[in-house]
This record gives sequence, C-alpha cells and structure tokens, in this order.
Amino acid sequence: MGAIVANITIKRALISVFDKTGVVDLAKTLAGDGVEILSTGGTYKLLCEQGIPCVKIEDFTGQKEIFGGRVKTLHTKIHAGILSKRDKEAQELNTEHIDLVCVNLYPFGKLINDNVREMDKLIEMIDIGGPTMIRAASKNYKHVCVIPSAAYYDEFIEAYKNNNITEEFRLKMAIETFRTTAYYDSVISKSLFNVSTGKGLFDTIENETVALPLNKVLDMRYGENPHQYASYNAIPTFADEDISKFFTDGKIHGKELSYNNIADISGAMRILSDLPDNACVVVKHSNPCGCAAKATTFESYKAAYEGDSVSIFGGIVGFRGTVNKQTAELLSQIFLEIIICEKFDADALEILSAKKNIRLMEYAAWKDKILQYENNFEMKKVLGGVLIQERDRINPGKDEEMNVITNAKPTDAQIEDMKFGQTLVKHVKSNAIVVVKDKMLLGVGAGQMNRVTSARIALDWAGDKAKGAILASDAFFPMPDTVELAIERGISAIVQPGGSIRDQDSIDVCNANNLPMVFTGKRHFLH
Amino acid sequence: MGAIVANITIKRALISVFDKTGVVDLAKTLAGDGVEILSTGGTYKLLCEQGIPCVKIEDFTGQKEIFGGRVKTLHTKIHAGILSKRDKEAQELNTEHIDLVCVNLYPFGKLINDNVREMDKLIEMIDIGGPTMIRAASKNYKHVCVIPSAAYYDEFIEAYKNNNITEEFRLKMAIETFRTTAYYDSVISKSLFNVSTGKGLFDTIENETVALPLNKVLDMRYGENPHQYASYNAIPTFADEDISKFFTDGKIHGKELSYNNIADISGAMRILSDLPDNACVVVKHSNPCGCAAKATTFESYKAAYEGDSVSIFGGIVGFRGTVNKQTAELLSQIFLEIIICEKFDADALEILSAKKNIRLMEYAAWKDKILQYENNFEMKKVLGGVLIQERDRINPGKDEEMNVITNAKPTDAQIEDMKFGQTLVKHVKSNAIVVVKDKMLLGVGAGQMNRVTSARIALDWAGDKAKGAILASDAFFPMPDTVELAIERGISAIVQPGGSIRDQDSIDVCNANNLPMVFTGKRHFLH
Repeated sequence: MGAIVANITIKRALISVFDKTGVVDLAKTLAGDGVEILSTGGTYKLLCEQGIPCVKIEDFTGQKEIFGGRVKTLHTKIHAGILSKRDKEAQELNTEHIDLVCVNLYPFGKLINDNVREMDKLIEMIDIGGPTMIRAASKNYKHVCVIPSAAYYDEFIEAYKNNNITEEFRLKMAIETFRTTAYYDSVISKSLFNVSTGKGLFDTIENETVALPLNKVLDMRYGENPHQYASYNAIPTFADEDISKFFTDGKIHGKELSYNNIADISGAMRILSDLPDNACVVVKHSNPCGCAAKATTFESYKAAYEGDSVSIFGGIVGFRGTVNKQTAELLSQIFLEIIICEKFDADALEILSAKKNIRLMEYAAWKDKILQYENNFEMKKVLGGVLIQERDRINPGKDEEMNVITNAKPTDAQIEDMKFGQTLVKHVKSNAIVVVKDKMLLGVGAGQMNRVTSARIALDWAGDKAKGAILASDAFFPMPDTVELAIERGISAIVQPGGSIRDQDSIDVCNANNLPMVFTGKRHFLH
Repeated sequence: MGAIVANITIKRALISVFDKTGVVDLAKTLAGDGVEILSTGGTYKLLCEQGIPCVKIEDFTGQKEIFGGRVKTLHTKIHAGILSKRDKEAQELNTEHIDLVCVNLYPFGKLINDNVREMDKLIEMIDIGGPTMIRAASKNYKHVCVIPSAAYYDEFIEAYKNNNITEEFRLKMAIETFRTTAYYDSVISKSLFNVSTGKGLFDTIENETVALPLNKVLDMRYGENPHQYASYNAIPTFADEDISKFFTDGKIHGKELSYNNIADISGAMRILSDLPDNACVVVKHSNPCGCAAKATTFESYKAAYEGDSVSIFGGIVGFRGTVNKQTAELLSQIFLEIIICEKFDADALEILSAKKNIRLMEYAAWKDKILQYENNFEMKKVLGGVLIQERDRINPGKDEEMNVITNAKPTDAQIEDMKFGQTLVKHVKSNAIVVVKDKMLLGVGAGQMNRVTSARIALDWAGDKAKGAILASDAFFPMPDTVELAIERGISAIVQPGGSIRDQDSIDVCNANNLPMVFTGKRHFLH
C-alpha cells in the first residue's frame, strides 16, 4: 500500500458497546471536540450519566426500538451514513454521515465459557446489528474509521489527538474487524453444531470450507528451537469440555511449559488414554521409551524405569492414576522435566515440589475428557495447506482381533502382551517395533526408514531380555528378515497387522521355528 | 436437540443471489404455491424474465436504491420481517414477515483466485447486506428458514414439497450460514492483510484470536491408516502464491495421492528448499534416507541411491532441477512411489510414465514459491488445541557460522560437508545424527530417545564409509560418548550446535584425538 496519509474528519460517531471498558474516556475525547455521538441502550445511559452529550439512535433514525432491540441499528439511515462514498449523490441525498463506528459485539464466547447450552440463550447472544455496523464501516474504511474492540481505544485516542487517523490505520482496523467477525461466527457455528448434534469439531471440519477458531492461550518463549516463534492455541469449546486449561490450571508446580513440553505431554496422555489404570509411560522426543501396566502406579513406574534407565533422563513421566509417597521418592532420585498424574498424594507432592526445576501436572479435573481424548483430529501443516485426519481411534488392547495364523498357538499371557505391545507400537513413530514382556516395554525401534532396522534397534535395546518376549510391529513385514532376526534373538511370539503380498514367507519362517504369530488386520502408522 | 417437528409456513421469501444456479427452479416451486417473492437487482430481472411473479425489494421497503446498491437491503422493514418473533408485538406492528431467506454472497474468493490485488476491487466485493440477511435469518431459525448456498436447493425443495421444513433442518442451515460467513470473513481478513502488508498468514496467526480458513482440495481415500478419514485443505491465497495446486495440477502421471504421499512430498520439498540446485533427496517415512548435492541431478541421484539402496524401495525421490533420460533410466530400475522434479525431459517422461504405479510430479509452475517455502508456519494438534510455530527458517548451509572450537582446524572441504550435514540433520526427526562425505549422505540416525543411539544407527548405516566422513548433530552432546563413538568409527570431523554444560568434555576428547569440531550455535530439533 505504501505510505497513506489521507486523513478524515470525524464529525459524527456511533458508539454502541457491550464491553464498556474505556468507552467513557473515548467518548469524552470526541465530545470535547464537538463530535456528535450516536448511541444505544446501555452505552447511551452510561454516557448521559457521565454528562457526555449524545443522541439516542432512535432519535437519529426516527424508528422506535422494536423486538427487544433486535432491529434497532438495522436502519437505512445508519447504513447510508456509514456506507456513503461522500460523493455528489450523498450530497444530493443530504446523507448524515457517520465517520466513526465504535462497536463491540455481544459476548457469545462468554456463554461457551460458562457452559450455557440452552439454545434460546445462545441464540439471543448472537449479535446481528453489531457485526453489520463494523463490517460496513470496514468496507468503507476510506471514509470511516472503525474500532472493533476496546483494545484499540488508546491507539485511536493517541492518533486522533495527533490528527493522524490515517487510511493505513483505518485499514488496519478494518482487517482487525474481519478477523473479529470471522472468529465470532466460527465459534457460533461450532457451538451450535456441538449443542445440536452432540458431536465435536471433527465432524464440522469434513465440510468443504471451514474457518477453524483458534484462541491463543499461551505465548511460548519459543518453538521447537529458540529461533522459532510459538504459541499454544485452544479450539474454543464449552468449559466442561475444555482440556486446554490442563496446560494452565493443571500445572501445580514448576516453571512455564515449553512448546516441546506441550507436545510431549499430549503424546503421553494419548498413550495413557489407550492403557489400563495404573499404567506408567515415559516419553522422550515424542516417543515412549519406558512403559508398563502393572497393578499399581509404583510397580508400573519401577518396570518402566527398568525398561530404559538411560533415556528417561530429562524425560516426561505420565501415570494413569495417583502418585504416592513411595513412588515420589523413587521419582525424585533422577532428573525429570515433567511428572503428570491424576493426583499427587500430599506427601508425594511435598517431596517432588522440593525440586525447583521439575514441572508437576495433575489432570484430575479433566480426567474423563483427557482419557477419552474424544472428538479429536490431527493436523499437519504441509505445502500450501493442512492435512486433516481423524485420530487413530482404535485401541488395540480392546478393539482388535488377534488372529493366530501359525501352527503354534500363543498362550493367554502372550496374547495379553501382544495387546499391550500393539497398544504401544501404535504410539511409536513409524517404522515402529517394540519388544514387550509381562506388560513391560523392553525395547523400542522408532522412526526408521526400513523395518528391519527398527527391529534391530528394539532388539539391541532389549538385549538378553528379548529372550521369551513378544515383538510387535505397527505395519506388515515386506520380507521375512524381521522374523528371522527376532527368532535369532530369542523372541517367543510376534504380533503384526499382516497384509503384505509376502506374508506367507514370514509365516513359513515362524512355522519352521514353531513360533506363534498373530495378525491384527490394523496398521498403525504414525509419523 | 432431539426430534423437532415444529413446521413453519412460508408466505414470503426473500431471494437475492449472486450465483444464479438453480434459483429459477427454486423460485418456481415457491411461486407455484403463491409464496410472495421479494428480490433484488439481477435476481429480480432473471425471475421476471422467467415469468415468475416477484416484488422488487425497493417496492417492498419504499426506499430507493442508493450508493450503487450498497444499502438496499439494510432496511428496518426487511430486518423486522426476518427477525420478528412472530408474537403479539409483531402483530401490533403489522410486521410483514419474511419466512425464507435465500441469499448467497458476493464471490470475494473469486477475486483471490483471479489474483486481483487492487484494494478498490476487493473492497467492492465485500458483501455487507448478504451476510446481514442470512445471519439474521439464522438467528431467528425458529421462525425462518435460511438457504445460504445453491448447494442446498435440492434438499430444501424436497423437504418443502413434503411439508417438512423442520426446526432441525432450519438449525442445520443456520449452522451452515455461520460456517459460511466465518470462512468468508476469514478470507477477507487474510487477503486484505496480505495485500496491505505484503506479509503472509504467519503474521496474522500471532493474534489473540483468529479463524484459520481451510478450503478442502482433496478428500483422501484415508489418512495415515485405512481406518482414518482424511483430507487435504488449502489455506486460501492469491492464485499466484497458491502452491496447494501443486498437489492437483502438478501431478502429471499416476494414481491419486495419499495422505502419507502429501506429507512426504512436503517433507522432500522442504529439504530441497535448503539445498543447492541439482540436489537429490530420497524420503521415506518423513525422513531423508538418501541425499546428495552434486554437479548434476544424475550424479546427485547416483550418490543418493548409493547412500541407502535398501530404504529407497517404495520411497519418494525429489530433485532440485530437471530429470533427463539418463537419470530416468536409472530411476525406472527400482520401485518408487513418487518422483518429483522441476521438469521431466520429454524422453525421460516417456520412460517413467510407462510405469503404471508411479506418480510423477513437476513443480516448475510453482518453483519460486515452493523453493522459498515462504511465509510458512507449522501446526501440531495437541490436547485441547493446536501448537503453532514459525517454521525453522535458518538454512544452515547459508546462515550459520562455523565456529571451530578445537585445536585441530577443519579443511575447506570439511567445512562444506559440515554445512551440508547441518542442512540435512535439520530435516531428520530428533534426536538426529547424520554422517556425510563429499556432499553425500552416508548414514542417518533418526528419531531416537537418546543421542548416542542415533549416532550408533547412523554410523552402523555408514559402515566403512564413515572413515574420513563428517558427523553432524541436530543438538548438543550431553556427554562425550557420541564423540568417542565417532572417533572409534573413523569420523574425521564433527559439527554440532554446542551449548551443553558439559561441552568441554566433548572438546577435550576431540583435542586428545586431534579431531576438528565446529559449533554452529543453532539447534534444529524436529519431532
């Protein structure tokens, strides 16, 4: 646009605000200059009380307020005053121009924060006149200045006093206006959809066009690396479904969360959502590196630690359950970034909060929503746009069939470990292989470009413990090399989705070695 | 909501559409029942021509059209007719009710598709009256039916003929309306921002609240796995900046792209954007598994293939340059999912398109935008919302200082390989280690939960080729074990960001072994 200095003269202003913050000062500034102020309802009353001269909108239009105020500003005289091009036609029509429009909208979002689901109440809080006035003023920004929120009063007053309401400033306010109305309507659309269908956001984003509402909750110090800007943004939803608050109100000790923290905490909770109560998971660089599902959180933690006592350093430990004193004592012996659990016992909290650098998070207040991880979808920024997909909702431990396709049959205990292994391998970056035994993670092969390398990493990690353990894979084996390697290392049974044109090669190797193998039929890639 | 059956009686309809598709049939259906039709401008003219009785909006309001039609529907009589609660007050006021509002909006988005950047033209295409009417009708969905797009005419006519315009249907249309207006305003806000500042979307999403416009381009067969719904959605932008079209118009041979294809293609282009001309990269499961930057695309491909002739099977090969016949002959010898390049020579295309299952993609038409990968940001869906971060814009080969911190100094050739190594390691999932020599990738350690394991994977992969090669790391070494391992395997120099409190331990080991090590100061985590 370049430098723009075309000033306008403000002779008449329309001020109609729901949020009254700062509006008196703004009106005084204008009135002091002899600007005629048009106003409605509560704003009119407030300004009059403050001795600021103003004109009631119905006296300006000559139209009495009807239908509880639903139609008061939807009047030709107002919109002609705003939208006029200030040309010969306007002169001939004796248009009474409105040069400044200061309006903020009915706070529809507040109802959402307050869990109001009654359709009548939601509907009444949908502003029609407000968006129309600020959108009209924005369209005509060459002649009109719009102020769509109290956040801009100071900037406006400063510019106004310096006789500097430039076209550039007015355009900036116009852009802010369309951002505001877009967000407003996206929250309305989403909320009415949620209430009327009981469904979440996922279903709305199957539409051809959609505006995804994002409400910044945290400005982070930086992103994955110090040279990247970053923020955490909630997708607005009714307060009792809003798990974004876990990242603010759920942190009961420790310094601010980082970008990588939020990503890893989410990863940990996603894994726990598929595991049984009392499970424990250790997450490092988005992958689980320790995990166990034992009878108590204490036993689970001990087994998770035993599975990888190296990578846990500086990691995130999550529990599906409470942390007691005994567990806290063990946890306090090593350096951890974050501990997450449903609830810390008082004495456990005392022990752990003595450590300054650790972050402690409790999810009791959001437990059901977080452990269901419901209505969720994944997004990935790619060239020119965004990939959206349904979250992988299959819980292998509960939902998958275990089809034995070898002569040898697995024992019940092996089947249980296969379910545990498939549950974990679902959450490991692809290509993914895990080695498990007695519901304990013994080795992880993550993120490799070929499958047998992932298997080798997992088996190397498990070492001697691989003997008699289960090997689980997130996708089929394109050739029998992984099975051969597993047998060489003493693996006692294998679980994988199956589906390769060369499945029979792997089955043959299993049968020749009397090894049970199970097909689940469900791939679980995760990149 | 439960079952809703409260029908309404449609006596008067307001029809004002920019897109005239199907509107005649709709109007005929209504007129046939004696519904009074109010209409404006072009719609009025069309309906009259078709012999459908209708009333001009200005005859209904008694207000002559002014300001080129800017204000025609912003009239109390219209909005009272729409917003009336159909109660005693309305009766007393003799409100003339409008029971159906069929309006579609000025096609602002078409200007964006047509690269129109003149502010005057953009401004004129911002609809004020249209959104107001359909938003008002939506607010009053209990009494009024809104049809915000021609896409719903058939569904409406069907329901209308069956006397079945239920409250449920009207609410559904109301929700569609707010989705439509939210998207409309989000595109306006973004486009005016782009034009007036020359900046991209990244700056707008630093705001407190934002609605991110998403326009579905491709419905995928499925997501990362067959049991997940997925789509590719463009973020609308001026056509000459719209690289989303690369995924539709850029594919010149082969079957439809999958979710994982789009993710990997984006990854490949992101890597190429940091590499010199004629480079070649092979991507598998989002990581580079082969890469070289030689004098020609042919030499680069040969070297990339040599670096990993196993993982390349079923992979994606990308070139920063053209593919000629000689290269095509080599490429055609193995199974590849996708080949991407600026342009295929005609004889190269002939050879490769003989393969039915391969997808061939040319990016010549979007070259500058794609290779700049400009104005971009990353999104990650997490618990309750979305992490947004600035893309890692540092190009290690160009932007980073190479600070030698050992007694031994690297040669110029080693410095060049260090830059190449840092460029690649930036694009490998963390923890990431690469081994490179002569601008060729020899080994990749990706996605591990501790650093020395990544080093071991990369060095195992490189094997004997590690002797005399460079080892590059995406983050500092927390202890000297990685350096010790590198020396054991014959690595000739090391490059890493530095920054550990135990950096000196690693430096001491280098000095004791006369090995040069360089610190860049810039971490490149990628998860």
